[in-house]
Amino acid sequence: MKYTSPANVTDDDLALLTDLYELTMLQAYWREGMHERGVFSLYFRKLPGQRNFMLACGQQYVAELVTQLHFSPSSLQRLADVGMFDDRFLAWLEGFRFTGDIWALPEGTPVFPNEPLMEVEAPIAEAQLLESLVLNQVQLETVLASKAVRLVMMAKGRPIIDFGMRRMHGMDAAIRGVRAYRTAGLAGTSNVLGGLIHDLPLRGTMAHSYVLAHDNEQEAFREFARQFPGTTLLVDTHDTVAGVRKVIDLMAEEAGLKVGAVRLDSGDLGALARDSRRLLDDAGHQEVKIVASSGLDEYSIAELVDTGAPIDAFGVGTALGVSQDAPVIDLSYKLVEYAGKPRVKHSPGKINLPGRKQIYRRLDSQGYYCGDLISLRDETVNEGESLLTLLVKQGQIDEAALAEADRARERVQHTLTRLPPPLCRLESTEPSYSVELSEGLKRLQRETQ
Amino acid sequence: MKYTSPANVTDDDLALLTDLYELTMLQAYWREGMHERGVFSLYFRKLPGQRNFMLACGQQYVAELVTQLHFSPSSLQRLADVGMFDDRFLAWLEGFRFTGDIWALPEGTPVFPNEPLMEVEAPIAEAQLLESLVLNQVQLETVLASKAVRLVMMAKGRPIIDFGMRRMHGMDAAIRGVRAYRTAGLAGTSNVLGGLIHDLPLRGTMAHSYVLAHDNEQEAFREFARQFPGTTLLVDTHDTVAGVRKVIDLMAEEAGLKVGAVRLDSGDLGALARDSRRLLDDAGHQEVKIVASSGLDEYSIAELVDTGAPIDAFGVGTALGVSQDAPVIDLSYKLVEYAGKPRVKHSPGKINLPGRKQIYRRLDSQGYYCGDLISLRDETVNEGESLLTLLVKQGQIDEAALAEADRARERVQHTLTRLPPPLCRLESTEPSYSVELSEGLKRLQRETQ
Repeated sequence: MKYTSPANVTDDDLALLTDLYELTMLQAYWREGMHERGVFSLYFRKLPGQRNFMLACGQQYVAELVTQLHFSPSSLQRLADVGMFDDRFLAWLEGFRFTGDIWALPEGTPVFPNEPLMEVEAPIAEAQLLESLVLNQVQLETVLASKAVRLVMMAKGRPIIDFGMRRMHGMDAAIRGVRAYRTAGLAGTSNVLGGLIHDLPLRGTMAHSYVLAHDNEQEAFREFARQFPGTTLLVDTHDTVAGVRKVIDLMAEEAGLKVGAVRLDSGDLGALARDSRRLLDDAGHQEVKIVASSGLDEYSIAELVDTGAPIDAFGVGTALGVSQDAPVIDLSYKLVEYAGKPRVKHSPGKINLPGRKQIYRRLDSQGYYCGDLISLRDETVNEGESLLTLLVKQGQIDEAALAEADRARERVQHTLTRLPPPLCRLESTEPSYSVELSEGLKRLQRETQ
Repeated sequence: MKYTSPANVTDDDLALLTDLYELTMLQAYWREGMHERGVFSLYFRKLPGQRNFMLACGQQYVAELVTQLHFSPSSLQRLADVGMFDDRFLAWLEGFRFTGDIWALPEGTPVFPNEPLMEVEAPIAEAQLLESLVLNQVQLETVLASKAVRLVMMAKGRPIIDFGMRRMHGMDAAIRGVRAYRTAGLAGTSNVLGGLIHDLPLRGTMAHSYVLAHDNEQEAFREFARQFPGTTLLVDTHDTVAGVRKVIDLMAEEAGLKVGAVRLDSGDLGALARDSRRLLDDAGHQEVKIVASSGLDEYSIAELVDTGAPIDAFGVGTALGVSQDAPVIDLSYKLVEYAGKPRVKHSPGKINLPGRKQIYRRLDSQGYYCGDLISLRDETVNEGESLLTLLVKQGQIDEAALAEADRARERVQHTLTRLPPPLCRLESTEPSYSVELSEGLKRLQRETQ
């Protein structure tokens, strides 16, 4: 079998990137004449791992996909070949466009259990079809941004660089991860295409293979630094301290050769950073920075920062690339209203909130977030700031909301100053944050049971 | 920012899906005139989580990508805009094609720590460039296939259906996951595009939203079963046992209405399956099958199977989609030879094997695999079966190897009968399996230290 496009998904195929049951349900709705508006709510029930909040991310991206969603002639032919679908239904799909509304949290907003990240309102078939795609896309960025922001918090201003492309799950994750990392506040990425598409500075050093391919480490350093003035040299191929000495000798030997940093990639990073800093400083090279990598995560970065290791930047791969400790969240996309009537699944021990909703976030007197209220969308609430905004209106992306969404990175930076300190810890704090239901929502919940 | 292609990666962009340091090293090799052949070995050091083996997967797929790899005019322009690269180097990249050889394990082969999944031999720049892409692509399928095969082993012949698209990390993972699942032996997938591209049967039921959108559960069942004879009805929206009764009533009421199965998606699946089976059997519906889903993984499936729960098929999403307990392996792509000389990084406490290698797998008298020997490629070994085959020769995919690789699914089924029973357990068995080094390899290792 030959693969013509590496990622296997083009605009023409996108509508088929869905679960089969979405399409069978669509045919059923269509044949039963069920075209009334449905409202679906996207939320999760439980924070994964040690998370105290998630950063909602990917809503704008998926909303743009949704507004382009259509069934191309080739995708309709593929569906016809499946042999399960009515020709008239397929003809109806040919005219399919999303004409509904999408309310969403601005990207980069901290979000807690049971709070909607998005609410989609449209003729039920249109809203139903989005389920699998919205879940796949919003989960990806939300999981990765929520991991990345923990690294950013622990680094206390030191840059974090994404080195994770090789560990991520495929091409789309590698590219879209950079988008999530940018929102979360990473300083750069090694991923060329991801960085170029999503506007995060490209960073790179050298691999051990480059040093090993030379008969002599110092020669490798010399050649590389000549070609890339200000570059970072990887010093641990044979022995880290000896490697740093070679960099110093090289700078002494060849005046004008500019080395930006040395990179430590194995061993006791704190001790090696101290030794390296001392050697560099003693040689008068205060300007040469130290970059560390090698199995780092938010815990090891916190320890290095807290113990004063003289590390100027951290490169993180494995732990970040798949959000290793919490690679998944239990996002649900549930019908909460149809034909004007609230709907809710009966789930013992679980909370399912009917109807169209809004979230209000309150600040305490010191300017910290102190709790959320989930209300009905059109209920009057006199406290806090409303969070869900109208991102797609009658099938059209709201241009003002789009411009606003581009400020997601700035939003996260601002948000981090307002998060109550317990939520910024690496361990989960239970209960992490107060999320209450409004009187109107509680009443509707009782009436719908 | 608008996204023109949902997956963001086209053939034209593929060469840029790499880490920046690959390209800076390429320029360095080019400028230094380092065009001798390098050999890179792809392997991992440690089994993740509770794995006793990994199923090597994705090598054929990435080899096909590699043979198509080139720098398009648009990608060269993008690199020029980065401002780090020499114009003459970019002109050289324009003629870049992979002209080397790739040795690889056939897909679906069990693989153990320190064994090469692939060895790439080419002028060093060509082999170097592949690093990030090969790691990203082979890890994805290997991680997912290795998780999926655990489900298959525990289900003891009962079909496992992939319901995980919504939990996977983006589009490429969702599509490629189906390829890995097919190799591992899954019976079907809910993922339409993935199933169509990678030839795994499409399976689907209905969502709770479909039932909730109807005022009456039985009406929802009737409409759906009329449209899709033999379909699976989701019976737990309100109360599972009551749901099964409604299905039975419906079949009594409407002769000729065919229901293929009921799906249980919450609660105590074992108990509910027994109750449902009894109700169905008592009503004479032995032909209606029971499908279970809801947070299943290999442990819960093993328990359900071992306790005799009358479940005919399992749908698995979250645990499978990201290989939740072990989403990543520490795959390395290391230079092991350059210009005919073995190379190896000095890593205290870690094994790095120099030179071109081969793996021999031995069978015991009962037909079980009883241990591997890693040797030098051209060393004479008189025991076991050699595993690495030449997949790409001088830049061309070997058509015979390609046809062979299509038999990966059958290979896995055969392999499972030969794996020693301790390796088929869900808990890791230490040492899981004997992997020895040949005398020739040990000698080269000593000489290269």
